[in-house]
Amino acid sequence: MEREHRSHLRSKPAVVTVPALYRVAVCGGTHGNELAGVYLLRQSMKRKRKGSMADPVTMVTVMTNPRAVQQCVRYMEVDLNRCFTHTTLSAPVSDVTPYEVVRAQELNALLGPKGGSAAVDLLCDLHSSTANVGLCLIAHSDSDWICLHICKHLQARLATIPVRYVHYDVPKSEAYTLHSVGKHGFAMEVGPQPHGVIRANVFTAMQEAVHLTLEWVRLFNSGTQFEGGSVDVYTMVENIKYPQDPLTHTITAAVHPELQDRDFCLLHPGDPVFLSFSGETLRYKGKEALYPFFVNECAFYETGVALSLARRRKVEIPDIQCSRM
Amino acid sequence: MEREHRSHLRSKPAVVTVPALYRVAVCGGTHGNELAGVYLLRQSMKRKRKGSMADPVTMVTVMTNPRAVQQCVRYMEVDLNRCFTHTTLSAPVSDVTPYEVVRAQELNALLGPKGGSAAVDLLCDLHSSTANVGLCLIAHSDSDWICLHICKHLQARLATIPVRYVHYDVPKSEAYTLHSVGKHGFAMEVGPQPHGVIRANVFTAMQEAVHLTLEWVRLFNSGTQFEGGSVDVYTMVENIKYPQDPLTHTITAAVHPELQDRDFCLLHPGDPVFLSFSGETLRYKGKEALYPFFVNECAFYETGVALSLARRRKVEIPDIQCSRM
Repeated sequence: MEREHRSHLRSKPAVVTVPALYRVAVCGGTHGNELAGVYLLRQSMKRKRKGSMADPVTMVTVMTNPRAVQQCVRYMEVDLNRCFTHTTLSAPVSDVTPYEVVRAQELNALLGPKGGSAAVDLLCDLHSSTANVGLCLIAHSDSDWICLHICKHLQARLATIPVRYVHYDVPKSEAYTLHSVGKHGFAMEVGPQPHGVIRANVFTAMQEAVHLTLEWVRLFNSGTQFEGGSVDVYTMVENIKYPQDPLTHTITAAVHPELQDRDFCLLHPGDPVFLSFSGETLRYKGKEALYPFFVNECAFYETGVALSLARRRKVEIPDIQCSRM
Repeated sequence: MEREHRSHLRSKPAVVTVPALYRVAVCGGTHGNELAGVYLLRQSMKRKRKGSMADPVTMVTVMTNPRAVQQCVRYMEVDLNRCFTHTTLSAPVSDVTPYEVVRAQELNALLGPKGGSAAVDLLCDLHSSTANVGLCLIAHSDSDWICLHICKHLQARLATIPVRYVHYDVPKSEAYTLHSVGKHGFAMEVGPQPHGVIRANVFTAMQEAVHLTLEWVRLFNSGTQFEGGSVDVYTMVENIKYPQDPLTHTITAAVHPELQDRDFCLLHPGDPVFLSFSGETLRYKGKEALYPFFVNECAFYETGVALSLARRRKVEIPDIQCSRM
């Protein structure tokens, strides 16, 4: 309704007020082999011990899957970042419950409960990708003004890496990600970086982005009014799977060299998508030009996914201010 | 002796004759998450089933660590590519012997015995690295004319990727690698490629390199005389370890952005090596300029190694011909 109204008038919407963000959680190690977040958290915890983190915002830092971090694997039994649906969070626990389900319930008690008034105000979950995604904020809403304003802030301030907003259009109750536990939340995904490896440029970009996020929260809480504008939102539409051998179910092609590393570059019908191991080019058969992302992400091989495709549109965001002022 | 003689005369050495290479083994999956070799072998086995591999050279293709390949991990219990010393190959086997030790003994029976007359004539073991190593042939000898001539052949024919010869100066009996089982042997290492990921450019480079290797062997066996020349040999000198927190033993720095991806670019005393997570640059303290390689290789984190350093020198290689002609 509000958006239609704005579009009709073609004038600036009124300032939107949103409650202050008193409790912010920065989480890492949700996937134990995505090392940028792991080392950033360790570094932040060390600084905290030294007492330099005195701050009006209460920031909690949580290493969310310590066992997977210790083993340097994505997960021990099941993917922790698929465990935060209401169903899984309320499932009874027994001796055979996977470690990550138990851990998800612990994290929900610590940072949530999801959907409840005691949940953290903002949850930022740190991830890295083997795909050339730059820095993405991944969220479940395309009208969360907090997340969109933080994205705009990062876009204006981060010089070394492109910043994009990716939207998975899933109702909060069905959302399975850790960041869905916060009142506002996003995954911060940085790449390319191989899993099990830390690259200084990826670490530094993530460090700056977390710093800028907290800076934005402090300014917001202290009454700064942030000007609106527009943010490009990439809404996830579909996954493209690798071609498989019908007998062995192993993949028979790699992502085409012309698509590799070209995340967020428009893919047109007929463009190359795969190069088969016998040398044949396979092309994009869709009818609509879309934006590929998570191109050749390591963790998606287990489900056979080679890349995701998104539709891009501009979202107008209003001026915003903290409601307590 | 021979080399001193040549250097004294400063003239071309006589043609060296070497026995034909009747049995060639191409191995992959020695590290189960290095996918270029895994998919190249699968592809080659498929072609073989289709009968297009009729060939005067007997080529055996071996998926060396099938359990690790199936799990997409480097190894199950111990690193297979550290199991080919005479000691490990002759160790008694019991119920608690690690899978990879048992497998190494099986592979030694199939492709060796190491040091014996029944061993394969040439063993090429396919690996990939997260480091920007291009394509390296890694061997235990700097005077194996077969390996050096194959390297020269690849250098002349492979347009898409730099080709280098890396020498680990270890006596064959102590060498722990699979390729030490062949009469001649090398690891073919291609990168950068994240473990658990296949990149089309890396796959294609490896495919071409294996094709060119087999082409060289066929020409050699059929009597072609190959002209000598010189090959740059990089001899491994030392490993540089990550700085660690003395309490937690976790690393406290990443490879410096100015060194990252600059494998085989000369590192001078005083050049940046690490960027600590708190932002401090740590510099190379050695007295000799050396060539870094395996810079930020994922698999070396478990031993704390950040990069290796090599000394480069030119090795003169003689004209070569098959002795049976």
